[in-house]
Amino acid sequence: MELALIAWLREQLADSPSGPARIGDDAAILPWPKEQDCIVTTDLLADRVHFQLTDAGPELCGRKALAVNLSDLAAMAARPMAVFVSLLLPRDQPITLAQGVMRGMFPLADQFQVSIAGGDTNVWDGPLVVNVAALGTARPGRAWKRSGVQPDDLLISTGPFGGSLAGHHLTFTPRVAEALYLADHYDIHAAIDVSDGLALDVWRLAQESGCGMELDLAAIPIRPTVGQTHPRPPLQAALEDGEDFELVFAVSPDVARLVLEDESGILDCHVIGRAIDGDGLWGKDADGHVGPLAARGFVHR
Amino acid sequence: MELALIAWLREQLADSPSGPARIGDDAAILPWPKEQDCIVTTDLLADRVHFQLTDAGPELCGRKALAVNLSDLAAMAARPMAVFVSLLLPRDQPITLAQGVMRGMFPLADQFQVSIAGGDTNVWDGPLVVNVAALGTARPGRAWKRSGVQPDDLLISTGPFGGSLAGHHLTFTPRVAEALYLADHYDIHAAIDVSDGLALDVWRLAQESGCGMELDLAAIPIRPTVGQTHPRPPLQAALEDGEDFELVFAVSPDVARLVLEDESGILDCHVIGRAIDGDGLWGKDADGHVGPLAARGFVHR
Repeated sequence: MELALIAWLREQLADSPSGPARIGDDAAILPWPKEQDCIVTTDLLADRVHFQLTDAGPELCGRKALAVNLSDLAAMAARPMAVFVSLLLPRDQPITLAQGVMRGMFPLADQFQVSIAGGDTNVWDGPLVVNVAALGTARPGRAWKRSGVQPDDLLISTGPFGGSLAGHHLTFTPRVAEALYLADHYDIHAAIDVSDGLALDVWRLAQESGCGMELDLAAIPIRPTVGQTHPRPPLQAALEDGEDFELVFAVSPDVARLVLEDESGILDCHVIGRAIDGDGLWGKDADGHVGPLAARGFVHR
Repeated sequence: MELALIAWLREQLADSPSGPARIGDDAAILPWPKEQDCIVTTDLLADRVHFQLTDAGPELCGRKALAVNLSDLAAMAARPMAVFVSLLLPRDQPITLAQGVMRGMFPLADQFQVSIAGGDTNVWDGPLVVNVAALGTARPGRAWKRSGVQPDDLLISTGPFGGSLAGHHLTFTPRVAEALYLADHYDIHAAIDVSDGLALDVWRLAQESGCGMELDLAAIPIRPTVGQTHPRPPLQAALEDGEDFELVFAVSPDVARLVLEDESGILDCHVIGRAIDGDGLWGKDADGHVGPLAARGFVHR
């Protein structure tokens, strides 16, 4: 099985703009660019947990497995370089399924010039499991962390929240281009990508930075599909649905102004809150009333 | 779940000789050493496929998941640097299980000074799945490949074969020390680690190098546990059982002599065959008769 799949992959990747990968050794060799840190992330996705294979089809499942990893690299302002794909395939037509999953990754890999440089395939009696490990580069000391929020920082998002289950969680574009542009042009203090829910992930940013966060509830941009799959108040959906894969980053008020006025056409940014003294997560409503906000998010069941 | 596990891991890794890892960002930051290629491998292991969790216990399953990846790095003569662990945990006591799996990795990680630098955890209704992605370093152009076998090369193994299911496949020591020593002292042309079976993996070495291979059947060292779990002729077991995780490497006859006479105490090497013109896999018996050998190995079912 593995031999046939590797032969097919070699053929596919030989023509890929992301560069031919040498598949066939026990490990891949990546000549590492000088003066660049190595940024690494890994995410495992399983059928019936992170996607429904029968509804979504193999291509979108593969696409999502790659996209969530690219989103993690974007959250660090890392330039994607190479990914490594492990597949655990149900025994029924494993090669066809594996080809579908990989085919779903190719366009995204090409778009962000990331090489599919290795992996592992196995067959078993369980559902589809896809693990991706992704490597990127960043200039030493320049990768964004969650821990860099400073007093008076404003919180900015790269897009709207909520309703991701209506399709966005499979089709979203990881904010790689936005992250690389922001890192090149502005002083970003800290960042995270929103995977588990805006409230929970902003709380994490606060925890790592040792501060509190106040979300401006009336200012949070909301995705139009909110409520389509799980009826509930739009704001709650935006705060808790998760899998938005927008970046939330912290900058000084001066930089925030410049980011909002940026005319590159690359960004669509929104101020959604601010760092505050103390700790915890707080919400300010349209009337200016401030109250505690639950750091709840989506946990896969 | 993930938050509790991350807190525990942070505590465990803070005291680890392999160095405290910063866990808590979307990705890990590895300052990359100058003038070193980045060698990357990934392997996914699943309960009931690569191990039996109820028999082996979580520690040995975790140990194996790390060890097979370190073996792949050894096959490239790469020095292990960092690993990234993805867990897919059955819903029944996932934290206890995750801690067991990780605890099984710590001693091996310490032994080879490799940092557990990141990962991903998920809970589901299926069996345990562990993916490890491993990064190592090698001087540019010095990583071993499968494709470098030269005419008249001899094939050398770092140890015996067969009978791995009796326990070796869970408890083996990846040949990292041997590989780094060999790379430092001798001109190694090509190498592979034997995971799927000696015959199949030597055939792969031949295929990648565009030559044939002749195994000296009477010279293949055989593990004493051969036949304990699956009764069959010892030579067949040595050729086909797999999961030996010994290295097989190709060197000139002159270097082979030096390797066999090496007195460092690090190596226990055996000449097991030679490269030949043509292609395919051949076996020479004790009487000097040569015949074709099936490139059969163990495929997980």
